[in-house]
Amino acid sequence: MRPAVKVSVLVRPKEGILDPQGAAVEDSLRKLGFDVSGARVGRLVDVEVDAPSEDEARAQVDEMCRQLLANPLIESYAIEVQPQ
Amino acid sequence: MRPAVKVSVLVRPKEGILDPQGAAVEDSLRKLGFDVSGARVGRLVDVEVDAPSEDEARAQVDEMCRQLLANPLIESYAIEVQPQ
Repeated sequence: MRPAVKVSVLVRPKEGILDPQGAAVEDSLRKLGFDVSGARVGRLVDVEVDAPSEDEARAQVDEMCRQLLANPLIESYAIEVQPQ
Repeated sequence: MRPAVKVSVLVRPKEGILDPQGAAVEDSLRKLGFDVSGARVGRLVDVEVDAPSEDEARAQVDEMCRQLLANPLIESYAIEVQPQ
């Protein structure tokens, strides 16, 4: 049995899209005394894909992002294949 | 003015910790026909830190994780300094 390919998907709110969660995090960090700016909160999805190659796994995850994992109107995503 | 250091924090549910959101994502992906397993959903926090060096920025973000960004009982986190 071939090993599954481990992939991480990083989903971020697009630039210019309001991110109230990021604003709340930034506000809290500042109140704690940290000198931060531009905080943005997104999602991280780890998944193991049964695919014959890393390229094929990446292509499948790209399709997952389009269909389910990200909202392309307001979110961007990056796909990172993890080392075996 | 020195440029802020851009840092990404990847927060994941620890192994063995129940992750209902991950289970729901996996179930949905399977219903869409994808052959996946081990789906886990976490958070991604991007933040710009005013710090004199990458090392100092990383140390500050580690402290942010301990105080606010992650729950060390049930979550692990990874800190990635982004290229300038």
